[in-house]
Amino acid sequence: MFNSFGNILRVTTYGESHGTAIGGVIDGFPAGVKIDLEAVQEELNRRKPGQSKIVTQRKEPDTVEFNSGIFEGVSTGTSIGFIIKNTNQKSKDYNHNTNVYRPSHADYTYDKKYGIRDYRGGGRSSARETANWVVAGALAKQLINSIDINAFTSSVGDIFMEKPYQDLDFSKTESNIVRCPDEDSAEKMITRIQEIRKAGDTIGGTITCVAKNVPVGLGEPIFNKLHAQLGSAMLSINAVKGFEFGSGFCGAKMKGSEHNDIFNADGSTKSNLSGGIQGGISNGMDIYFRVAFKPVATIMSNQQTINSEYELTEIIGKGRHDPCVVPRAVPIVEAMTALVLADFFLLNKTRNINI
Amino acid sequence: MFNSFGNILRVTTYGESHGTAIGGVIDGFPAGVKIDLEAVQEELNRRKPGQSKIVTQRKEPDTVEFNSGIFEGVSTGTSIGFIIKNTNQKSKDYNHNTNVYRPSHADYTYDKKYGIRDYRGGGRSSARETANWVVAGALAKQLINSIDINAFTSSVGDIFMEKPYQDLDFSKTESNIVRCPDEDSAEKMITRIQEIRKAGDTIGGTITCVAKNVPVGLGEPIFNKLHAQLGSAMLSINAVKGFEFGSGFCGAKMKGSEHNDIFNADGSTKSNLSGGIQGGISNGMDIYFRVAFKPVATIMSNQQTINSEYELTEIIGKGRHDPCVVPRAVPIVEAMTALVLADFFLLNKTRNINI
Amino acid sequence: MFNSFGNILRVTTYGESHGTAIGGVIDGFPAGVKIDLEAVQEELNRRKPGQSKIVTQRKEPDTVEFNSGIFEGVSTGTSIGFIIKNTNQKSKDYNHNTNVYRPSHADYTYDKKYGIRDYRGGGRSSARETANWVVAGALAKQLINSIDINAFTSSVGDIFMEKPYQDLDFSKTESNIVRCPDEDSAEKMITRIQEIRKAGDTIGGTITCVAKNVPVGLGEPIFNKLHAQLGSAMLSINAVKGFEFGSGFCGAKMKGSEHNDIFNADGSTKSNLSGGIQGGISNGMDIYFRVAFKPVATIMSNQQTINSEYELTEIIGKGRHDPCVVPRAVPIVEAMTALVLADFFLLNKTRNINI
Amino acid sequence: MFNSFGNILRVTTYGESHGTAIGGVIDGFPAGVKIDLEAVQEELNRRKPGQSKIVTQRKEPDTVEFNSGIFEGVSTGTSIGFIIKNTNQKSKDYNHNTNVYRPSHADYTYDKKYGIRDYRGGGRSSARETANWVVAGALAKQLINSIDINAFTSSVGDIFMEKPYQDLDFSKTESNIVRCPDEDSAEKMITRIQEIRKAGDTIGGTITCVAKNVPVGLGEPIFNKLHAQLGSAMLSINAVKGFEFGSGFCGAKMKGSEHNDIFNADGSTKSNLSGGIQGGISNGMDIYFRVAFKPVATIMSNQQTINSEYELTEIIGKGRHDPCVVPRAVPIVEAMTALVLADFFLLNKTRNINI
Repeated sequence: MFNSFGNILRVTTYGESHGTAIGGVIDGFPAGVKIDLEAVQEELNRRKPGQSKIVTQRKEPDTVEFNSGIFEGVSTGTSIGFIIKNTNQKSKDYNHNTNVYRPSHADYTYDKKYGIRDYRGGGRSSARETANWVVAGALAKQLINSIDINAFTSSVGDIFMEKPYQDLDFSKTESNIVRCPDEDSAEKMITRIQEIRKAGDTIGGTITCVAKNVPVGLGEPIFNKLHAQLGSAMLSINAVKGFEFGSGFCGAKMKGSEHNDIFNADGSTKSNLSGGIQGGISNGMDIYFRVAFKPVATIMSNQQTINSEYELTEIIGKGRHDPCVVPRAVPIVEAMTALVLADFFLLNKTRNINI
Repeated sequence: MFNSFGNILRVTTYGESHGTAIGGVIDGFPAGVKIDLEAVQEELNRRKPGQSKIVTQRKEPDTVEFNSGIFEGVSTGTSIGFIIKNTNQKSKDYNHNTNVYRPSHADYTYDKKYGIRDYRGGGRSSARETANWVVAGALAKQLINSIDINAFTSSVGDIFMEKPYQDLDFSKTESNIVRCPDEDSAEKMITRIQEIRKAGDTIGGTITCVAKNVPVGLGEPIFNKLHAQLGSAMLSINAVKGFEFGSGFCGAKMKGSEHNDIFNADGSTKSNLSGGIQGGISNGMDIYFRVAFKPVATIMSNQQTINSEYELTEIIGKGRHDPCVVPRAVPIVEAMTALVLADFFLLNKTRNINI
Repeated sequence: MFNSFGNILRVTTYGESHGTAIGGVIDGFPAGVKIDLEAVQEELNRRKPGQSKIVTQRKEPDTVEFNSGIFEGVSTGTSIGFIIKNTNQKSKDYNHNTNVYRPSHADYTYDKKYGIRDYRGGGRSSARETANWVVAGALAKQLINSIDINAFTSSVGDIFMEKPYQDLDFSKTESNIVRCPDEDSAEKMITRIQEIRKAGDTIGGTITCVAKNVPVGLGEPIFNKLHAQLGSAMLSINAVKGFEFGSGFCGAKMKGSEHNDIFNADGSTKSNLSGGIQGGISNGMDIYFRVAFKPVATIMSNQQTINSEYELTEIIGKGRHDPCVVPRAVPIVEAMTALVLADFFLLNKTRNINI
Repeated sequence: MFNSFGNILRVTTYGESHGTAIGGVIDGFPAGVKIDLEAVQEELNRRKPGQSKIVTQRKEPDTVEFNSGIFEGVSTGTSIGFIIKNTNQKSKDYNHNTNVYRPSHADYTYDKKYGIRDYRGGGRSSARETANWVVAGALAKQLINSIDINAFTSSVGDIFMEKPYQDLDFSKTESNIVRCPDEDSAEKMITRIQEIRKAGDTIGGTITCVAKNVPVGLGEPIFNKLHAQLGSAMLSINAVKGFEFGSGFCGAKMKGSEHNDIFNADGSTKSNLSGGIQGGISNGMDIYFRVAFKPVATIMSNQQTINSEYELTEIIGKGRHDPCVVPRAVPIVEAMTALVLADFFLLNKTRNINI
């Protein structure tokens, strides 16, 4: 319940950043899907630390092993177990912080909730968990491979990529290390992150995600609205502070006469302020949404804080951390999107007896 | 699954706007809670149509009846059934639209998904459904009555109430019909909605919600993060296009050195950009978030559209509709917030064997 | 969670025997099923009190009203709300027992669990609840109408109908009031129940259920095994003490060489000790199982007991109760069987990408 | 959903008998429980193959490794990942059966449901899966360590241990290899199994389970009745064909005047035909139930069968299999009982606001 996501297609995960391994179980994945294991590993590689100069310099290979549910290259319909061994567990790095609460981390809340906490590297609250999601999402992508999911960095700090997504060539997203398909913006973003890193600071940003070729009819109209489940998925990602789809917060300033998406004769709409979702259900237009990430809380400056005895103390800024999570979060956003869409794709097979 | 919300405390609903009744079942509500039925009805009255000149002029009494689960004024721990009879079902009003797809409504998507649709007044996609949620939320409020939940209108179109919430007196929210506790802003908002109504148009807006006295430890750290579940709840409300908590989208522009919430010696924090939630778990600070509502899709102008035969046709602007949903959505936002917090309050009783 | 049954097709119920109404919500029922409302009422009539001389003489019409989810005679895919009003609530009948714990009833356990209890007529623990299930099951039957579900009384006390089910004509089940398709046995059973009733006592019995034309592939192989879910469904029915399918407890005495079901060339099996289920999944053969019901705990003799103050007291035998629940439980067994099969029928649409 | 068991405390599993590993995730296990890992391994050892002359002679060490959720010997409240590596994967043993359907196994149903099947050693349908359950159950036992759960072999074929469980010394269950605490019966059972083994045949049996010191109030009264969930748990175990609790099928032959459990002044009951559960809720008396296991389908004789091309063929009796599953199923029954009770123990913390 607490470590599971999805209705029919459900991933359940475990793992602390400095335990022996992380991993999970993918349940409800249907039989008969040809599985490309290399494509899964490639998604993991997009997320892994140490891949460029603007992300954390920790080196973790993040190799996934599958233990079940795939036989002779095809999904069998049984649950898919997978494991990613932790190979870079220098937990002594963290011994100095065993009872210190890092500001804007989850140390304090875990301790209050559970009375105990694996303090090594963030434990369960580490974003390392998202490697599990990328694995599950990579399989989900293969299940719904006619849907085209593209996330990209749309802002870093106050540098915004202003072009409408329709003008972008998504094949360029991977051509630069910040994962922004507009090269001019990408360059500025990279420069900004390098400045921030040099200053020992961190910075926030946003990711935009576009899903094309989504069939009409995905999503449930009341409590599993497609956008509500996408929102829940995105807000599950570490550091996320906001989610908007279609017109989003801008839509709240608009008038109905401006905002309505007028139909074309074929059922498509002239505008798409709805963001491809009406009444919680996909309408066949592009689904697009935007996700806000706060700056990473671990910075290289010393900060005043408290420990578990409520004593004031100082936390020393050191270690290897991302100056900006956004570039590495791009594949995570795609993975969670794929999980949501694949789940609704399966669910939709049960909703109309005549189909 | 599709019409249920919550983990332990779970509400399951039914009802179309022009059927005989709407209603639902509240499951997992614990025994021993003294129930104030009048307080429930009062919450419903805050949501009901016809309550002021800036909302829809439909008259619906929206009287809730409870059928089970409450005995001699106390919850019994068994499921609570309730029903709100529909008394204003002039479905012939809608006969002209039986197969016409209203722009930016859910008509088209329902038809494509289900192959059939109760076309009277929006059917299941009508915001009438949210009356059910207000009932459930009103009970949830009574379960967690030490938590103080206050939502209010923070913008209408481009009129923003700019004061920080800490400067507001929430007791004034109900003193004006737009439900903005700042009287100057309220007046401007009301004027704006009246202009919009006169123009036969509609307008969007935002609601901010603040929860005070939330115990530390609510929320689950991975897939039931407190803010992810709040986001899912808010995005379930009709017309919602975005959700942000704490620093939200602004946080994405900030640096870590600015954004971190430094601890005081008592475990509280000097700033609260985290919005009362760290690692998905409440930290005892105020929880606050903002919800964006698009303008109502039903406008008084004629619009070009199509019907189920993919023929171009025109939809005539008439009927009684809200020029702006935000004032009536304030109690809905509170209700959904209460449901989420009460659910996590119960869930938290199971998470630490020593408590 | 507590008052819900099913995975995809899920019924959630409420209601106490002497509240204003019982009812529920059926979620996940697919769109496009033609609904015969009279057939639903007929199933309820099979369960209702007062229908013959061998069941309780209470008169309750048990009329179901549907509030949503069915439009112009067809299911719409939205949740189906229904209500059965309580019309025979002579709660003063029960006033003498407000704090007395009836032996082998749920009074004591409810009080200890919840600290409060609707003591009128059993409250939520009354078998009246099963009327809700019959409604849901009657709709499920219409969803999977090619499957033929037949339950019947197979024993009353020590009177056993010994014929193999293959020799029975199920069309005769409704031809006698005890619902045993073998007329000789039926007569003996009826006589036995009449004797028991005269003696102011009650008696147990068993129901056998046979489902024919079940498609191959229903059921999930690990924790939603078809027989595990059928067992859970049957054990949910009031007074049930045991469940066995296929060879059941007899199978535990057998050898593998006797028990194995050898295949015919078409995939059917020569014997069917498996009861139509292998590895938790239907194999296309008849599914059959047997359910044990204890004697009703309310008897017409006075019994020593205690009250909520732990004082010894006497409970007076009076009121109108069933001398044997089995005849009225036949439609309940069928209803729960239909719910399980319909749920797995829907679920199975998601399990193989090539189907 | 399909590979998960439990409400709050939920285990999700994966693994095929001849894959690289089996394992799972235990979710909802509360923080603060001291974990004895050796005790977990000891439970696994009770289940493992090769432990005596009357079980399969396959040698599998079945060593469990925990990857998360336990820190410094205490549960942290985060999900507990575990893995049991398969070390005895002689899958070539099975190559001759790749497309042959073994009688009364799950080969045929898997193939029809999924269109693909890991044919090596039963794949997912192998009872090897239950090793996962024993791990989860062993942790559950530690969570509810004041409850005393004792299962034992109560019959093998037609040899029944006739003593009431109250006359047994459960400390003797492990003193013989068939796990029957009555030594005379145990000896006869062992002899019987040896005869059966020599004959190349298999035999069924029953297990009785008794849970003492169960707190009053566990179980939910409608669809999560304590006995319904126990039944579902037991019916999930491979080869189980029936479940009865308390008076069980015998109760169906009794009269109410005989069957009612009369209260003592302290709330206990003079008899306990209810089996410790009334209205789905534990009443503090011993919970006891009986589980029927069919004979293992793999026998040493050749059997006629079909293959996936619907051709008649012969299956050759060979390999290493249990002549009777019952002795090794005893710890599995206990494990599933512990999971159910622990789940309801946690759930019960949410059901009464005053506790």
